[in-house]
Amino acid sequence: METTAPVADAATTGLYAEVQLFYARQVHLLDTVQAEPFAATFAIDGVFEHSPDSPPARGREGIAEEVRGYNERRFAHDPVRRRHWFNMLDVREQPDGSVHTEFYALVATTRPGQPVPVIAPSCTVRDVLVREGGELRTLRRKVTQDHLSF
Amino acid sequence: METTAPVADAATTGLYAEVQLFYARQVHLLDTVQAEPFAATFAIDGVFEHSPDSPPARGREGIAEEVRGYNERRFAHDPVRRRHWFNMLDVREQPDGSVHTEFYALVATTRPGQPVPVIAPSCTVRDVLVREGGELRTLRRKVTQDHLSF
Amino acid sequence: METTAPVADAATTGLYAEVQLFYARQVHLLDTVQAEPFAATFAIDGVFEHSPDSPPARGREGIAEEVRGYNERRFAHDPVRRRHWFNMLDVREQPDGSVHTEFYALVATTRPGQPVPVIAPSCTVRDVLVREGGELRTLRRKVTQDHLSF
Repeated sequence: METTAPVADAATTGLYAEVQLFYARQVHLLDTVQAEPFAATFAIDGVFEHSPDSPPARGREGIAEEVRGYNERRFAHDPVRRRHWFNMLDVREQPDGSVHTEFYALVATTRPGQPVPVIAPSCTVRDVLVREGGELRTLRRKVTQDHLSF
Repeated sequence: METTAPVADAATTGLYAEVQLFYARQVHLLDTVQAEPFAATFAIDGVFEHSPDSPPARGREGIAEEVRGYNERRFAHDPVRRRHWFNMLDVREQPDGSVHTEFYALVATTRPGQPVPVIAPSCTVRDVLVREGGELRTLRRKVTQDHLSF
Repeated sequence: METTAPVADAATTGLYAEVQLFYARQVHLLDTVQAEPFAATFAIDGVFEHSPDSPPARGREGIAEEVRGYNERRFAHDPVRRRHWFNMLDVREQPDGSVHTEFYALVATTRPGQPVPVIAPSCTVRDVLVREGGELRTLRRKVTQDHLSF
């Protein structure tokens, strides 16, 4: 079977933790709607496909605009705190130096004075990560919402 | 107190990340109901005790059969996407080379067209992990569901 | 931009995994209401600010008392299993050797015989961690509940 495969490379090289840290910071920017800094966590030619309702956003300007527009359209008159949660993160380094990841996501949305958040939708996410100046950047992200995946 | 204990071995050796990666891949196989590949993440004589309603499944064939049967009985006429989430993972390497883990689990279950998943039950899980051909395998898993633990 | 910053120090040194492990063990003590061992994961002069309804708890005795009192007041006649979940953990080592962290938290509360937990509230947490005898300890924790943050 897989018993001759190398032992968990991403774990031993620190890459696994580096990706976790990268996602934590990326998500904090998204959830505080810092559109430009969030977009800067994508590669210059990054592609962000986050919803079947929107065409993929392309490039940092396009991604920043998508994030700002999405938040304005949906939450301008419905103030919320949104928290993206990622989990069960698989990380696979590729021969070309890029990094493929696959993970689960949920969004906890809280409204003023209501302690119980709405936790939805459940998604799977696939990213291609690359390095720019040594730092991880998302080159492509594709989000699939479970309720639309049947 | 514990101040003379060695600093977080599992962290410094990369074992902690290796276990996280192992669980991510194991869970992806479980949630896509790949019964045999999931069972292959258990040791040859692995034991999987996941519910008080079923006797523990034993050995890879037994575990594969349990996973396939469970999904057929419950979801054949109720299509779902199930996502297991693990969290607050404790990892303790043992003198004999095995690894004891303890963590929380929740399952997010999504039905077609319904964006809000049912997130239940809350569980605690205890695993004994061993190595086969250098790779981590689950030797024993015991899941305790919180609502049945009083 | 940030492209000249060093590559993820906390990841490469093992600190990131060490913090994850520290939090897993700290939370297991909290959720099993082991008030003194939980308080011992704080620095001797630790401060725990977990709710706008209580003044910050100070020192290990004060923190143990706060945890015990909180559980007695709220759950003496309402038995529950509480599970704190942390996620999207940012870790930043400071020049003085302390470690600043920022992460999300949710609490899953299960009652006897009810498989679906109440998952609330959604919080953000900021910690300052220090070392005592080589081991991580929480010097200050401030929890902000999302529904009270508008």
